[in-house]
Amino acid sequence: MAERAALEELVKLQGERVRGLKQQKASAELIEEEVGKLLKLKAQLGPDESKQKFVLKTPKGTRDYSPRQMAVREKVFDVIIRCFKRHGAEVIDTPVFELKETLMGKYGEDSKLIYDLKDQGGELLSLRYDLTVPFARYLAMNKLTNIKRYHIAKDFDIAGNFDPMIPDAECLKIMCEILSSLQIGDFLVKVNDRRILDGMFAICGVSDSKFRTICSSVDKLDKVSWEEVKNEMVGEKGLAPEVADRIGDYVQQHGGVSLVEQLLQDPKLSQNKQALEGLGDLKLLFEYLTLFGIDDKISFDLSLARGLDYYTGVIYEAVLLQTPAQAGEEPLGVGSVAAGGRYDGLVGMFDPKGRKVPCVGLSIGVERIFSIVEQRLEALEEKVRTTETQVLVASAQKKLLEERLKLVSELWDAGIKAELLYKKNPKLLNQLQYCEEAGIPLVAIIGEQELKDGVIKLRSVTSREEVNVRREDLVEEIKRRTGQPLRIC
Amino acid sequence: MAERAALEELVKLQGERVRGLKQQKASAELIEEEVGKLLKLKAQLGPDESKQKFVLKTPKGTRDYSPRQMAVREKVFDVIIRCFKRHGAEVIDTPVFELKETLMGKYGEDSKLIYDLKDQGGELLSLRYDLTVPFARYLAMNKLTNIKRYHIAKDFDIAGNFDPMIPDAECLKIMCEILSSLQIGDFLVKVNDRRILDGMFAICGVSDSKFRTICSSVDKLDKVSWEEVKNEMVGEKGLAPEVADRIGDYVQQHGGVSLVEQLLQDPKLSQNKQALEGLGDLKLLFEYLTLFGIDDKISFDLSLARGLDYYTGVIYEAVLLQTPAQAGEEPLGVGSVAAGGRYDGLVGMFDPKGRKVPCVGLSIGVERIFSIVEQRLEALEEKVRTTETQVLVASAQKKLLEERLKLVSELWDAGIKAELLYKKNPKLLNQLQYCEEAGIPLVAIIGEQELKDGVIKLRSVTSREEVNVRREDLVEEIKRRTGQPLRIC
Repeated sequence: MAERAALEELVKLQGERVRGLKQQKASAELIEEEVGKLLKLKAQLGPDESKQKFVLKTPKGTRDYSPRQMAVREKVFDVIIRCFKRHGAEVIDTPVFELKETLMGKYGEDSKLIYDLKDQGGELLSLRYDLTVPFARYLAMNKLTNIKRYHIAKDFDIAGNFDPMIPDAECLKIMCEILSSLQIGDFLVKVNDRRILDGMFAICGVSDSKFRTICSSVDKLDKVSWEEVKNEMVGEKGLAPEVADRIGDYVQQHGGVSLVEQLLQDPKLSQNKQALEGLGDLKLLFEYLTLFGIDDKISFDLSLARGLDYYTGVIYEAVLLQTPAQAGEEPLGVGSVAAGGRYDGLVGMFDPKGRKVPCVGLSIGVERIFSIVEQRLEALEEKVRTTETQVLVASAQKKLLEERLKLVSELWDAGIKAELLYKKNPKLLNQLQYCEEAGIPLVAIIGEQELKDGVIKLRSVTSREEVNVRREDLVEEIKRRTGQPLRIC
Repeated sequence: MAERAALEELVKLQGERVRGLKQQKASAELIEEEVGKLLKLKAQLGPDESKQKFVLKTPKGTRDYSPRQMAVREKVFDVIIRCFKRHGAEVIDTPVFELKETLMGKYGEDSKLIYDLKDQGGELLSLRYDLTVPFARYLAMNKLTNIKRYHIAKDFDIAGNFDPMIPDAECLKIMCEILSSLQIGDFLVKVNDRRILDGMFAICGVSDSKFRTICSSVDKLDKVSWEEVKNEMVGEKGLAPEVADRIGDYVQQHGGVSLVEQLLQDPKLSQNKQALEGLGDLKLLFEYLTLFGIDDKISFDLSLARGLDYYTGVIYEAVLLQTPAQAGEEPLGVGSVAAGGRYDGLVGMFDPKGRKVPCVGLSIGVERIFSIVEQRLEALEEKVRTTETQVLVASAQKKLLEERLKLVSELWDAGIKAELLYKKNPKLLNQLQYCEEAGIPLVAIIGEQELKDGVIKLRSVTSREEVNVRREDLVEEIKRRTGQPLRIC
């Protein structure tokens, strides 16, 4: 392998030499001579199987979407976007990469997962890591203090100084609407508040500097037992066992508004200013959620912590509830499918004068949802159409390519979704088979006789029924049969 | 400035020291002491205006899209996607970045414009530069030989071994449909063929090694005069003047199918195998374009060259024709708004066995089109709605927040696009003003009396007419007035 690497280096250098000579407009003889050397080196090198295999992949952590997967994705996005629009959101978009400085110091532990770009002799750039930080940068840059927007069909945020908990309640309503519409099974939205967490840690005796690391231990409670979390806190993170036990008494609790009221009476917690504020807001939030008819989907869960540094108030996370696996269906893992919270400090980090713009938002875990929907469709062996073609323009005899081209063009111009096979003389059977495979419902068949009579034979692919339709009525008949509203391109 | 940089470095180092101590669980006293030092250093450093300004921007060459710009973009994309679907295309998607090797050696001169990512201890990655090379990588990786697809609402391609010029003609038809639908003014599609260009260069006496560089000179003919191009060829690129003149005789010609026929009779050009193939195909292409009713939009232009290395046959580029500037409208520059061509060799570059998949495609210059549409809307001072909200839920009196929340929730659940102001007690005037600004057509007003009577006051924002609607009829009435088809979320 070392030899191969050396040879590759030689090929590269010789290639550069040849390009250099060409640029310098060296004599044709000299270039030819050097090209000869290059070709010999390349022949010595031979084909590189491993290299070919290496090229034929996407980068780690990324994937392609096939037409079938995209069809699923489009349906999911359609549900999400319709919901965002129903709630009066505008759309914005920001670039795929940002200045490195824009992203620095916003994500805590997650920062190391950010991709940096190579310096191109100009700015230091990084690929965006989420849509929230670019959104905050956008607000500060454009001096906006009020906006309700969505971003790439998955992130929704409300920015502005409003009366407490009304936008927060709408975010939770949106989450519930989307998860219900997607029909991916029962779900529960866990709610907590950063201020309650911080207040709780304070009264339990955790030092300020350990808040974050103890927070991340607590966050594991949805996956591992309290015993394990306690071991981590005491063994790895140096917490006194009695402090851990006090935390344990709190974080193992979850419930509805009654738990909020109970904690408001808690002699210690109610003495902590931060916790008291958080609990008061949660109480108000539950009132609004009841008016929105979603209080039964919400669980106040003291173990919910959320990783990102920028949250400052209410936080939430939607999880799917495990359902007994149905016949032929693989059991779906429980996990977060949507999350969000309030981040009142982030915009101020970008503003030169530190002016704050309170924000609350949510993000839909579209990748996870795609996988769930895909898996379900596969289990049901459901066929997914990847095009919307209404009719295939076909011919039963030879030498009718020109007529097919004319007809398909007429249909396109009338707004009909139409295709033809790119063959001069395709067999009728092949044309019909194509429709079956692609799920195209209609075939418009041209023949010598039909041309003379001024009609087109319209065939239904599933019923195999055929009727002659006058050419001037064809567009209307296709629209009628495929239920497409009249719309001109 | 050098002093500032040194101070910044000290702050950074001290910050790292503090973080290290925290991780090592050093004593609280020690940490406090070190934090104190850090704060002093920071105070010394003071605020950095230049740095703040630096952060508040997007990377060079990128931009944000505001809600207004996104509304324009959505309309443009809607036209494009509807056309692609009309032509039976599937959708695929590929990652934002690719292995560096995937992109290397595919773009010729343009390669230096590719952004590389920093090595993250794994693979060498680059941001994708277009959608064509990732598409070819996708085909080779999935061993696909046949597909008609679009990609991010701007790139459309047909891959497969078909009878000549049928898919190529459809690509040109698609280009014309989209540009007509967008109503951005008159346009012309220039068509040429790489094989005609290569054949022409050969018979004029250009050496193989100079094809590409002479090609790039020729490509400038849409911007500068023939004299200037000739000067570049002879002066900078070392072409003999008589060779340049021979090229000039060809590349200054453009026309319709009659020019194709004339060149087929050209005693020299018709002797060149490549040129003959290209001309034969163009003749056939024009037949199909006539059947598609777009031959009047097409100009065979021997000066069209196209930069990218991967084209192998027909190439095309759509330009807007300069129209006399209308009153109040800035003159729009002429320029390419869509382009594409045939690239039969690209997939083979990725296939381990070099198997070829012929492809033809087009790309819409969406950024340019957005600017044109935006500029036009601005000139016309046309208001662009950035949301689709149908109704604002409002109240005329205080203490009706709960009732507003209940009603808006009912409307959302019925699929109505509705908003409310996030204020406990907003003034009616403010609520009406909000509708005027956001272009919301209806207001549903709740009052004490209306609640008692079981009605809602529905107000039209433009006509200011108000009628009482029974609460159970409200959804239907809003749908009727805003022309929304019945659709449940």
